[in-house]
Amino acid sequence: MIDLNSFLQKNNSKKIIVVQGLGFVGSVMSLVCSNAINGDYAVIGIDLPTDRGKKLTNDFNNGIFPLVSEDPKIDQLFKNTIEKGNFYATTETDAYKVADIIIIDINLDVEKENNKIGELINYNVDLSFFKKGIVSIGENCKEDALILVETTVPPGTCIEIVKPVIHNCLRKRNLLLDRIKIGHSYERVMPGPGYIDSIQNFYRVYSGIDEKSADAVESFLHTIIRTNEYPLTRLRNTNSTEIAKVLENSYRAMNIAFMVEWSRFAEEANVDLYEVVNAIRLRPTHSNLMYPGIGVGGYCLTKDALLASWARQNLIGQNESLSQSEKAIDINDQMPRFAFEFLNKFYKDLSGANVFLLGISYRGDVGDTRYSPVEKFYDYLSASNAKIICHDPYISFWKEKCFEVEQNLGCLFIDVPDIIIISTGHSLYKEKNTIDMLFNLDPLIIYDTIGLLSASHIKLLNQKHTVKVLGRGDL
Amino acid sequence: MIDLNSFLQKNNSKKIIVVQGLGFVGSVMSLVCSNAINGDYAVIGIDLPTDRGKKLTNDFNNGIFPLVSEDPKIDQLFKNTIEKGNFYATTETDAYKVADIIIIDINLDVEKENNKIGELINYNVDLSFFKKGIVSIGENCKEDALILVETTVPPGTCIEIVKPVIHNCLRKRNLLLDRIKIGHSYERVMPGPGYIDSIQNFYRVYSGIDEKSADAVESFLHTIIRTNEYPLTRLRNTNSTEIAKVLENSYRAMNIAFMVEWSRFAEEANVDLYEVVNAIRLRPTHSNLMYPGIGVGGYCLTKDALLASWARQNLIGQNESLSQSEKAIDINDQMPRFAFEFLNKFYKDLSGANVFLLGISYRGDVGDTRYSPVEKFYDYLSASNAKIICHDPYISFWKEKCFEVEQNLGCLFIDVPDIIIISTGHSLYKEKNTIDMLFNLDPLIIYDTIGLLSASHIKLLNQKHTVKVLGRGDL
Repeated sequence: MIDLNSFLQKNNSKKIIVVQGLGFVGSVMSLVCSNAINGDYAVIGIDLPTDRGKKLTNDFNNGIFPLVSEDPKIDQLFKNTIEKGNFYATTETDAYKVADIIIIDINLDVEKENNKIGELINYNVDLSFFKKGIVSIGENCKEDALILVETTVPPGTCIEIVKPVIHNCLRKRNLLLDRIKIGHSYERVMPGPGYIDSIQNFYRVYSGIDEKSADAVESFLHTIIRTNEYPLTRLRNTNSTEIAKVLENSYRAMNIAFMVEWSRFAEEANVDLYEVVNAIRLRPTHSNLMYPGIGVGGYCLTKDALLASWARQNLIGQNESLSQSEKAIDINDQMPRFAFEFLNKFYKDLSGANVFLLGISYRGDVGDTRYSPVEKFYDYLSASNAKIICHDPYISFWKEKCFEVEQNLGCLFIDVPDIIIISTGHSLYKEKNTIDMLFNLDPLIIYDTIGLLSASHIKLLNQKHTVKVLGRGDL
Repeated sequence: MIDLNSFLQKNNSKKIIVVQGLGFVGSVMSLVCSNAINGDYAVIGIDLPTDRGKKLTNDFNNGIFPLVSEDPKIDQLFKNTIEKGNFYATTETDAYKVADIIIIDINLDVEKENNKIGELINYNVDLSFFKKGIVSIGENCKEDALILVETTVPPGTCIEIVKPVIHNCLRKRNLLLDRIKIGHSYERVMPGPGYIDSIQNFYRVYSGIDEKSADAVESFLHTIIRTNEYPLTRLRNTNSTEIAKVLENSYRAMNIAFMVEWSRFAEEANVDLYEVVNAIRLRPTHSNLMYPGIGVGGYCLTKDALLASWARQNLIGQNESLSQSEKAIDINDQMPRFAFEFLNKFYKDLSGANVFLLGISYRGDVGDTRYSPVEKFYDYLSASNAKIICHDPYISFWKEKCFEVEQNLGCLFIDVPDIIIISTGHSLYKEKNTIDMLFNLDPLIIYDTIGLLSASHIKLLNQKHTVKVLGRGDL
């Protein structure tokens, strides 16, 4: 394993990019930069000098990519990178000193407080971790570096936090303030089979704290994104791009929250909401109407509206919250409970019931249980003393729950459970084989939260058994 | 002018369609039926025997189409109809007796009660008018007629109201109950340049109270809609299609309500929300994000969510409201006030101020002031004693306000006003000529509520004058 100096010597003709934070975004962004479409960069990934950070960076340098993904492009790009020798991972902040471009991909979390029934009763945004990250850049960076924030931040952050913190550091170091460039261009990374494409082949919005910053961001983005096909959009200030990001995700969260009460109305009215949504989605203006489901998960949709609302009260604006968007988060947080109560209505005493839970990821074809709504659903089931077996093709160990997850679907279907719950929309569950397996079993209830079974499926099923299929009205 | 009997004799080989209600939907639906793509119908339009109804039907029979529209196809189809002699209008309910198909296009209104600041404080759905319409059909129709409801109704109406009322009438007439067909297929009529196309060339969703009813609706729809290009979708019961319609419009209302607080946040943050929305709409999943505006108008978006919520509490369901969707209506109803308050912040004393209001229709390129948000906005302006001149290319007389509307834009621009408000997105206002006119004036404020002026427009404007452009952040 080489050290930073040898790495730099080896790549001495190249522009240097430092990526701060090697998580779900930073690690993949590093690959995209080290395989730039229109550029040749040396890329250094920095993470914290914790045990996790040390293992992570060691793995990287030893040719082990830290994420398991469905996207074959990740393996390919990582192989290229190793061959080219233009990526190096470290926990040392010295690396900022040599960076021409610093990309910030560290987390900025919201601490949420939900009560027992899932209602959002409080939340807080703690900027201290994020600020520390900025300080470590400001204490080391060149005075003419481009600092590009990709992290989803409360609107106002670049102007109210990043700029003054960096300026303050530069001032202490007796450096000029007017050569530094600070920009914002949020990522739209989508883990799963299109991981790399969600960076390289997708639209980007960007801005800078001034003209030269925005220009620098633009030049850089042209080197890593196929901007001919996916043109860039420049917005007029960093508030605009920061708002755009949280607006995007709040909008999505809102669309889901909107469906929550309609899905309950549909159940009461003996209406299959999947069928209704499919019919409506033919209209181009309504093509993104959401399907109802077990809940909302993942890192973004569960919190971005709160970042915005917090910012409106604390960074910009007039002390008013974004109450509608906050409400959407509150409703979505309660979805696992609604889903559980619905099941409970049809199967009153769950104590001792054998339950198969198919899918624990927060999203189809992704092996990620962070903020998965299935976790809360599982908690309700578990509290009612059901005997639960979990399956997920992408996950062998459920970190949040500390137990092994069944990965062989065939095995699982030897015993007939009382209840089968299809909780995540993995492709595997949509395959003919899986549906055939379901047909050969004879459970009391199939709870289809992803719209897997069609009306004709259910008709066929009920010719063989007397299974009750929940989630699609009284089909 | 011929009478009903001669009309029938003249068309004696044809299937007979009766359209109940000759308003914005029924009159155009009549044209589409009398010009059926795959059929040859005699069409009778029935309206109420009121003064209005008598004038309306007389006009029809004398070759005067009752609506002014931007759609050239309307004139063409009406001309064809007159030539073919296959349309007749009447106020006599006798016509139901000969109908093979009866299409219900009468209104079903919501009475809303808003307080002084626009908040929705109460509403009521009165079904009595609608029920009377059904009774007049039941007392006259053939026992094997197809009764097709196109009216937007509270979900549950076909099963809980239409079917029992019709059955009851048939029973009294000693007719069979099992030959009648009752179906639901909601219209998606969009007044404006694509009026006819919004029926003939658009997706349709349909259902019936039983299999034979749904089959009959399907056969009929194939004769009037280009179903090869715009396939039909059958849903499994009438509750489903009834919910689909109000869900569509509630979704749209919700998307607008969502933007309301974001647009205020954007103003506080010096962000041009139009610019942000344009950037986000590049994402296919976000292509229908709405622009902020002066308010929501028209017949559907302002009430359909309430029909649904009322139905959940009164026809189907568990006595719970659709509170999120109701809230959307409440927020949207307040938008004209928000827009006024925003203007008022920059122009504190509006008393005596000369104001041009460009556009009073509820929607661009439509001459329709029913439920126009501009009306409420006008009321606020008027209450603050501004001197207002209204312009609208499609409206010469503002019925709700009882005054003449300026139709010549050039005339209007001789005097320079203090404030120009672009309130409706008519194409005329987007033409280069109009924008040039704006450039030659020197008002204090242009309030652009439709996103007419681009950032570069505004830059240019401010090179000439010191006009303040509101509605797009502090550009």
